[in-house]
Amino acid sequence: MSRGPALAVVGATGAVGEVMLRILSQHADVWGEIRLVASPRSAGRKLAVRGEECEVVALADEAFDGIDVALFLVPGEVSARWAPVAAARGAVVVDSSPAFRADPEVPLVVPEVNPHAVRLRPRGIVASPHDTTLTLAPVIGALHAGFGLRELVVASYQAASGAGRDAARALREQISLVADSDLGTGPGDVRRAVGEDGLGPFSGPLALNVVPWTGELLGDGWSSEELGLREETRKVLGLPGLRVAATCVRVPVLISHSLAVHARFEGEVTVDRAHEILATSPGVVLYDQPEVGDFPTPADVVGTDPVWVGRVRRAPDDPTALELFVCGDNLRKGAALNSAQIAEMVAAELAASAGPSPLPAEPSSAPSSGG
Amino acid sequence: MSRGPALAVVGATGAVGEVMLRILSQHADVWGEIRLVASPRSAGRKLAVRGEECEVVALADEAFDGIDVALFLVPGEVSARWAPVAAARGAVVVDSSPAFRADPEVPLVVPEVNPHAVRLRPRGIVASPHDTTLTLAPVIGALHAGFGLRELVVASYQAASGAGRDAARALREQISLVADSDLGTGPGDVRRAVGEDGLGPFSGPLALNVVPWTGELLGDGWSSEELGLREETRKVLGLPGLRVAATCVRVPVLISHSLAVHARFEGEVTVDRAHEILATSPGVVLYDQPEVGDFPTPADVVGTDPVWVGRVRRAPDDPTALELFVCGDNLRKGAALNSAQIAEMVAAELAASAGPSPLPAEPSSAPSSGG
Ligand SMILES: NC(=O)c1ccc[n+]([C@@H]2O[C@H](COP(=O)([O-])OP(=O)(O)OC[C@H]3O[C@@H](n4cnc5c(N)ncnc54)[C@H](OP(=O)(O)O)[C@@H]3O)[C@@H](O)[C@H]2O)c1
Ligand SMILES: NC(=O)c1ccc[n+]([C@@H]2O[C@H](COP(=O)([O-])OP(=O)(O)OC[C@H]3O[C@@H](n4cnc5c(N)ncnc54)[C@H](OP(=O)(O)O)[C@@H]3O)[C@@H](O)[C@H]2O)c1
Repeated sequence: MSRGPALAVVGATGAVGEVMLRILSQHADVWGEIRLVASPRSAGRKLAVRGEECEVVALADEAFDGIDVALFLVPGEVSARWAPVAAARGAVVVDSSPAFRADPEVPLVVPEVNPHAVRLRPRGIVASPHDTTLTLAPVIGALHAGFGLRELVVASYQAASGAGRDAARALREQISLVADSDLGTGPGDVRRAVGEDGLGPFSGPLALNVVPWTGELLGDGWSSEELGLREETRKVLGLPGLRVAATCVRVPVLISHSLAVHARFEGEVTVDRAHEILATSPGVVLYDQPEVGDFPTPADVVGTDPVWVGRVRRAPDDPTALELFVCGDNLRKGAALNSAQIAEMVAAELAASAGPSPLPAEPSSAPSSGG
Repeated sequence: MSRGPALAVVGATGAVGEVMLRILSQHADVWGEIRLVASPRSAGRKLAVRGEECEVVALADEAFDGIDVALFLVPGEVSARWAPVAAARGAVVVDSSPAFRADPEVPLVVPEVNPHAVRLRPRGIVASPHDTTLTLAPVIGALHAGFGLRELVVASYQAASGAGRDAARALREQISLVADSDLGTGPGDVRRAVGEDGLGPFSGPLALNVVPWTGELLGDGWSSEELGLREETRKVLGLPGLRVAATCVRVPVLISHSLAVHARFEGEVTVDRAHEILATSPGVVLYDQPEVGDFPTPADVVGTDPVWVGRVRRAPDDPTALELFVCGDNLRKGAALNSAQIAEMVAAELAASAGPSPLPAEPSSAPSSGG
């Protein structure tokens, strides 16, 4: 076990970090040393991983000494500063933040869709997409392979935890406040019950409300997450001209994002063929029998690895378009799991290039460089 | 005041009925007698309207004696049975249920969009659209007049009260249950906290969840509300071939529906022109300055009459398409207010046709029949 590559988990104390430690405990035989890293605020805290207590160290150059793979689960500005440091010290970085997703020298990887992209990483950094993109990618990647994708119109139902640990806590507190208040039905009554201090990181009260805003304002009224979904989906699918129009909305759900998707393809589609494709796609569960109440909801899929798809219909006026409803745990496939999958691909590649191995990563790979 | 036409409010005790009584109290000078009608369960209850206590009578043939206009705010099967009875007894029926919306002999009216349709009512019945259609219609009707509409892709965020009084109560109870429970983050934890008995009329737990299902199952996986939005929007706009693909989703909001709309038009559109159109459209408030956090949310628009529109953007890859986010109170414009507006148009027409009047309803209308 301790023969595996050494892993650093940077941001081990966050919302994604917490789920990552659970995933690492389930895949216990992949890694040798696991080092937990966070801000100086958390240095000295002990967290359980693989059944053992492990002390958190503060982020610093030395945190990467002897590390083969570094998982970055920290805000974008922290990744922007520290991922190159880790890479310069020899670690392969797998970053879940927005910092490098648009960088042409950094591959953006969803293992079910574009696994080979992981190998070409001139900066030593591999990026994992945004949680909304990740909820969509396994489903739309499979349908693209089957039908040829031309256009996407997406409306999201994003959970509070997509904005991090503190955001999820703020929603829980708001739910308690509105439950305890003698709530009226006038304009602003929910806002008053929650109070300005209770808004948390959201652009409005979230309990008993939905907020059509996530991310930062870019030009022309678009939010960063809406344009990010477009850019990232194009990059992951290798379709630089794909039409994508998204509206990103935060909803009062703790964990798991949902998406209503209108997808237009090159030719005619059928629900039967879409069902066949989705039923056999890796990382996807088809759950689509509305006649017995079977369709995914965020509260039912939370804590599971795959993304779930249901409500598959052909557009009533366009035989080339499908409607879908997709749900996935934003902390698992939407973040920690996808990064863990990428890191394990890198580990297999390092093991293969280290010499004779039962896991040849590429047919032509010569024994070399060492790990 | 008692000179105005006599009005029956059938379903005065329901969620829409409650809001209707408030609206009637604000427009106190329109009607003569106001008679409140509900099921025999409610007969004898006293409700306030125009500042006076008024006793509820049970629905029966005699309930329509001397009535000029009957507002039906009852379930579809009750309307289907009783609206023709009221019409046969000489009342003009304004029905908010789904019962007659698709009937080619019943006009489907949104006063801001197709006011003239109200006059041609061979069955003596005028229908008011579903709350989701009504949230969309004033906005999309105005944009259609300006740009020529070709296609709609809509995802909804529908409030619990859209399913009635008991549904709204079920959501409040679910919110209390999850607030008080030591909620985990595993699959089904919310479902367990709510309990099978607590689901109410929803197809899954609604607190801390979203449920991609409203209405009944029609063919090919579509729900009645999704196909209803398509049929009703076509009928109101007079565009029988309009492409409409909708996904209807219930969200944990008490009152006010929201819609993420992708609308494609005949030619190029600009956000500036769309703003101009929306800023001057009746029944619409443009609220679109994301740079200072101004966009509509359901909790902020509840209790107001108009529908609110924000997040207006041009599709990044299609100069003929706009993205919009629309919110409206499903009990006001989405139900009671629209029916009240239609009823007032009928009242004006009756007054005009009754003889000399300051409210001529049609240039050519001859004094006749009497009211
Ligand atoms: N939440 C999601 O669904 C999701 C999905 C996909 C991607 N992501 C991305 O994943 C990253 C982490 O998100 P999260 O939701 O887990 O955020 P979070 O709950 O706020 O956690 C942030 C983590 O970063 C650490 N951190 C913050 N500032 C630091 C610094 N200056 N030096 C070292 N560590 C620092 C924190 O450590 P302390 O505890 O010491 O403060 C904590 O471990 C973000 O880039 C986010 O965009 C999140
Ligand atoms: N809620 C919305 O947002 C909305 C929007 C647009 C349209 N609508 C439509 O408006 C109608 C009313 O909806 P709602 O939400 O107000 O429903 P609700 O809260 O469940 O109220 C139902 C009303 O109908 C009465 N009723 C039921 N069965 C009856 C019977 N057999 N005879 C006489 N009265 C009877 C009830 O009287 P009791 O109190 O005596 O039972 C109550 O007044 C429905 O057709 C609905 O589809 C609703």
